[in-house]
Amino acid sequence: NVSAVDSKTSHTTHILPGLVNICAFVPGIATPGSTDFVEASKASVCAGFTTALWSPIGLHGSVVDDSSLAIAQKNAAGASHCNYSLSVAATGNNVEDITEEMAAEVKALFIPFNKQVVAGSISSVASQIAQWPSDKPIITDASSPDLASILLLASLNSRKIHVTDVKTEADVQLIRLSKERGLAVSCDVAVYTLFFSKSTFPEVECLPSQEDQDALWRSLDAIDAFSVGTTPYRLATELGRDSSPRSGVEETLPLLLTAVHEKRLTLEDIRLRLHDNPVKIFGLPEQALTQVELVVNRPTAFRHKSRVWSPLDGKNVVGSINRVLIQGQTVFLDGASFTSAIGRDLSTAVVSVPA
Amino acid sequence: NVSAVDSKTSHTTHILPGLVNICAFVPGIATPGSTDFVEASKASVCAGFTTALWSPIGLHGSVVDDSSLAIAQKNAAGASHCNYSLSVAATGNNVEDITEEMAAEVKALFIPFNKQVVAGSISSVASQIAQWPSDKPIITDASSPDLASILLLASLNSRKIHVTDVKTEADVQLIRLSKERGLAVSCDVAVYTLFFSKSTFPEVECLPSQEDQDALWRSLDAIDAFSVGTTPYRLATELGRDSSPRSGVEETLPLLLTAVHEKRLTLEDIRLRLHDNPVKIFGLPEQALTQVELVVNRPTAFRHKSRVWSPLDGKNVVGSINRVLIQGQTVFLDGASFTSAIGRDLSTAVVSVPA
Ligand SMILES: [Zn+2]
Ligand SMILES: [Zn+2]
Ligand SMILES: [Zn+2]
Ligand SMILES: [Zn+2]
Ligand SMILES: [Zn+2]
Ligand SMILES: [Zn+2]
Ligand SMILES: [Zn+2]
Ligand SMILES: [Zn+2]
Repeated sequence: NVSAVDSKTSHTTHILPGLVNICAFVPGIATPGSTDFVEASKASVCAGFTTALWSPIGLHGSVVDDSSLAIAQKNAAGASHCNYSLSVAATGNNVEDITEEMAAEVKALFIPFNKQVVAGSISSVASQIAQWPSDKPIITDASSPDLASILLLASLNSRKIHVTDVKTEADVQLIRLSKERGLAVSCDVAVYTLFFSKSTFPEVECLPSQEDQDALWRSLDAIDAFSVGTTPYRLATELGRDSSPRSGVEETLPLLLTAVHEKRLTLEDIRLRLHDNPVKIFGLPEQALTQVELVVNRPTAFRHKSRVWSPLDGKNVVGSINRVLIQGQTVFLDGASFTSAIGRDLSTAVVSVPA
Repeated sequence: NVSAVDSKTSHTTHILPGLVNICAFVPGIATPGSTDFVEASKASVCAGFTTALWSPIGLHGSVVDDSSLAIAQKNAAGASHCNYSLSVAATGNNVEDITEEMAAEVKALFIPFNKQVVAGSISSVASQIAQWPSDKPIITDASSPDLASILLLASLNSRKIHVTDVKTEADVQLIRLSKERGLAVSCDVAVYTLFFSKSTFPEVECLPSQEDQDALWRSLDAIDAFSVGTTPYRLATELGRDSSPRSGVEETLPLLLTAVHEKRLTLEDIRLRLHDNPVKIFGLPEQALTQVELVVNRPTAFRHKSRVWSPLDGKNVVGSINRVLIQGQTVFLDGASFTSAIGRDLSTAVVSVPA
């Protein structure tokens, strides 16, 4: 799918389908009256992500039951500029709240092991997985040592599972090995994890060691998807900088396209991990007449709409987004946005996913 | 199998089949010229264990390859007073040493996570498990967090696995849950773990907290077997006391029979966990005319043949061994032993084990 022109000229264009922003972070997802969905979904569209699978984990509240789901649905309805889905998080105390009816209303079950919410004991996670509909995705951000327990439960229950935000060599090896032995596991790595490390920001917890980052690059074949995730938000917070729902979203394609220019990635690698694989893993409907037009191999100073700090401030990148089309309409062109709140809720859209 | 007489009289006898000492510890197993097998196997017989499955992990060397297996075989041959088997340990560096020929010569593959030997990376353990014959037992002493990884590998490879020396509530819960979901996992708890805790010996590492011990007693239905293991040796060492290959072996039935008197266990519980289940799990041949005659419900001061320290020194127990018969011959009677080196190597004995 990489056009022959790319290798012949230094500056040229390339077209990708509308990208998927998986495990996308909305700080105010379950905060009544939050307008974060507007800003986060606008940022998504302008960054080439025409679909966002919002993580249920918010900053001051998460989607964990009927009432918090209702808040998230109300916040998103008529406010989202991209297609989207909502999910529900297992807290260890809400096994009974996640009814069949609730499962029918959301995209995925998220099993969290992070600073906001932890899933609870292995027995409660086992119950959650066992009662979750077998045809709906399960996502976890577990890392070692919790990761092996979650993969064990997935194996024992013959469930597919997606591991988001993989950060270490050990974890990607465990996932690779599980794949090789037939477990239906997929995973993503946050783009910031691939491009920033403790060697640049020694004081932060949210970035990998240089060694782990190098190992993740060597393990690209075992990494099904790229995500934005919470790392950009956490990086800004740890450094005492402001952040916004745009943080990290705008940086994603410029970082990846720079790696293409440096021959560390191909455009096909990007398409697979930001479109083809996410569509398969999460059973997403195709978006007609929706595409992202890129300028590749052209060095440019990184520019962002967000007023807040970016680790790319003052840096050059090689490659940018020229235009984004949704259903044949131009919603972003040459840095100017023409988006509107046309996003549909895909949470209940059923697409048959090959096993 | 508990005779009706037991409940009618206060002092009476009860007969058990010859018991199985699983994961039995021989300090000098791989030390050339060691006579530990003689002392350990005599102690086994006099304590009611007519079969010992020796752990491959020794004190100054372990069975890990052809040459160390040859040393162990030579040490045991013509020296063992009970039937026995040898096993081999995975070290992370000996995947290629454990050939099919070697596997055919030993009882089980042991995947260690202890102070003497550690199995290495998850990838090397995965290779070991994958190449190990699927009809031969795999044993591990892994505890959290390694336990989940090992159970995952067993699940992914559809292998049976036995977890020895379970010490915590969390680990027995993970095992119970794995059993409930269909994993072919069995486990044992060391008898010392059930009867001694940090509340009595606050300074030692090898004993459980009182809370974990209480939880293990409540989880007895998920515990398939009892073992002697290395805990008696480690307890003596940590307390700066002498130990011998007899340590803990002689204490086993007196401790368990005292618990029977206190109605914490039944004689059937003991028979299941020291004979029936070990025979099934490890595919052992039946021993004809071999039995252990017990005196139950009779208080007596604990007496032991070992000259070294015992945690039962000066304590009363309720119940003891009156007689041990092997193939119709009395080998132990009223404290006097008449054993000889008649033990057979069962490592290659093939008994079909129902799945
Ligand atoms: Zn192209
Ligand atoms: Zn260049
Ligand atoms: Zn598409
Ligand atoms: Zn800036
Ligand atoms: Zn009886
Ligand atoms: Zn009494
Ligand atoms: Zn028997
Ligand atoms: Zn003594």
